[in-house]
Amino acid sequence: MTNRPALTPVINALPVTVPFVGPEAQERDRGAPFRARIGANESGFGPSPRVIARMAEAAAEMWKYCDPDNYDLKVALARHLGLDVGNVVVGEGIDGLLNLVVRMYATEGTPVVTSLGAYPTFNFHVASVGARLVPVPFRNDKEDLQGLLDAVKRENAPIVYLSNPDNPMGSWWEADEILRFVEALPETTMLVLDEAYGETAPASALPPVDISRPNVVRMRTFSKAYGLAGIRCGYTFGDAEVIASFEKVRNHYGVSRMAQIAGEEALADQAYLAEVVAKVDAGRRRIAKIASDNGLKPLPSATNFVTIDCGGDAAFALAVMRNMLERDVFIRKPMAPVLDRCIRVSVGLDHELDIFTEELPKAISAARGA
Amino acid sequence: MTNRPALTPVINALPVTVPFVGPEAQERDRGAPFRARIGANESGFGPSPRVIARMAEAAAEMWKYCDPDNYDLKVALARHLGLDVGNVVVGEGIDGLLNLVVRMYATEGTPVVTSLGAYPTFNFHVASVGARLVPVPFRNDKEDLQGLLDAVKRENAPIVYLSNPDNPMGSWWEADEILRFVEALPETTMLVLDEAYGETAPASALPPVDISRPNVVRMRTFSKAYGLAGIRCGYTFGDAEVIASFEKVRNHYGVSRMAQIAGEEALADQAYLAEVVAKVDAGRRRIAKIASDNGLKPLPSATNFVTIDCGGDAAFALAVMRNMLERDVFIRKPMAPVLDRCIRVSVGLDHELDIFTEELPKAISAARGA
Repeated sequence: MTNRPALTPVINALPVTVPFVGPEAQERDRGAPFRARIGANESGFGPSPRVIARMAEAAAEMWKYCDPDNYDLKVALARHLGLDVGNVVVGEGIDGLLNLVVRMYATEGTPVVTSLGAYPTFNFHVASVGARLVPVPFRNDKEDLQGLLDAVKRENAPIVYLSNPDNPMGSWWEADEILRFVEALPETTMLVLDEAYGETAPASALPPVDISRPNVVRMRTFSKAYGLAGIRCGYTFGDAEVIASFEKVRNHYGVSRMAQIAGEEALADQAYLAEVVAKVDAGRRRIAKIASDNGLKPLPSATNFVTIDCGGDAAFALAVMRNMLERDVFIRKPMAPVLDRCIRVSVGLDHELDIFTEELPKAISAARGA
Repeated sequence: MTNRPALTPVINALPVTVPFVGPEAQERDRGAPFRARIGANESGFGPSPRVIARMAEAAAEMWKYCDPDNYDLKVALARHLGLDVGNVVVGEGIDGLLNLVVRMYATEGTPVVTSLGAYPTFNFHVASVGARLVPVPFRNDKEDLQGLLDAVKRENAPIVYLSNPDNPMGSWWEADEILRFVEALPETTMLVLDEAYGETAPASALPPVDISRPNVVRMRTFSKAYGLAGIRCGYTFGDAEVIASFEKVRNHYGVSRMAQIAGEEALADQAYLAEVVAKVDAGRRRIAKIASDNGLKPLPSATNFVTIDCGGDAAFALAVMRNMLERDVFIRKPMAPVLDRCIRVSVGLDHELDIFTEELPKAISAARGA
């Protein structure tokens, strides 16, 4: 049989790709586990003990479908944010929500603006609808607000993606700069403001919660500071009509019952969150010091990772990363031009940073010798 | 501000809708819980004790992202099915996989064939890409294979959806009929064969596992007999090239680490599955008897529910259902013409079927009096 069903032209043209190779895949390829898992910006401090207990208790009730309205979690989030429940939508992590917002506002050929080297999964979803990515280079290792704005206007783009704090550089803009950017945006351009790292940022980096503008959706997650990356739960808040539109496209049974329960409990334990945020801050300082002690330059970070300028070219940083991987230390690195001189190290547990301390100088030497 | 970002024309034209109103939403509206939850075809028997223990144990590791390859679960599924790992893809329930297959093969205006009154979530995903649903009426309370085939050929449709056993009638075709249907399909039409209820069907209803045809994908789930509806985990198997194409569009981090772990453990406990299947069979018999005792006509079922012909028109069946809901018994009913003379009752626990036994005659009387 040579005939087969034809993929749509847009899908047919796409490569078979995975936006990220997970550490598990690398471990399978290596045939050995990593000793330090400090590459995916997870929180090795784990979720709150209250959340762990609640999940264990909830396991037996997993025969029930999840509430397709995610109601209890949305109520808790709305209360947390000082909003109405109609201003919040929950999704399968920010990844799932990015897919939806792209499908809502972009179609074949639509120009979509982002930063060159920013979140690849957003780009993946843009490609899946056949939209046209317009990447704007970082400027001084930060997402270039003026450059993004210029691109939006030049292309008449209906979507612009901005992460604050950003990944992979860990940089951030203060709230007043973000607000200036929002003010200057065309009213017909949707700003997708990814605040995945909001909890570890200085309070001054986050604009006040304000849902008065129908061209801003803000996305947050339980994957980072809340320590629930594996449970897949993120949320978006904004104008009620925009939020209601997500109902048109979302997988109503996409967020598991376990995720809804875990998210609600995590949100209720703000004391634990504060502890983690303090540990993340200490971890950032420690990673920065290790980098400096090895003659590398840590960049300022508002996230749960530190990006480190290796002081050479992309090939050198890549060699450092590869040498770390060979030494059983899972880290990642930016790949876009200019940013690619860096490696990226997530805040991990003390014993993981001990291993990092021990292996980094060897990896640098090996990279220099290569 | 009157301007706002414009939804794509396809999305803009869609209603803000929820394919199913969950029991939780009904409980919120009623202001009271249900005493029997036998409407969503869940398994009140719950997941295997091994699965519950494994989930409880895994809670603490939810800080780690899920493996985006779902590798361990895919290996287990492939082994279970006698396939290669490249023949299997895992998704956020069958719902998530239906979204993907629709996006892969349909776009604006594409004719997509299904049965009138079959799974509404499939229709929801078809609408979300602006494709055109071609619904074929059931025939003798079964999905009409010849009618579906005629519609496919008439419309030159690239996708046809078939569930076997089917929901909402609980009917099924024997494997040889399904195979005849597959043989007769154009090679360019993708058959989406939804086998969500496969585990509770007679073995003779399931065609042998065979991935030689690139125009068949079969979908199964942990939501039904495995008792894991809340965890969101389904899978599809088929031709390796087709399965690889899912990588182009799927949310690689959509299936939680908890779901992957639970699915793997559930699959390993086939003894528990066999116990549940036996209980489901007993429950079907009991529901059928209760229906007959009340002068109603239970339809044959290969699923974990029994559809009951109330012997009157749609209004009567609706009144029976509403009267059951008022008596705190959550059930559902088919809504498409002809099928709508029925109510649908999931196999529940003994105490739930006791409540059903007690309340059904009262609901029938009340419906007759209305």
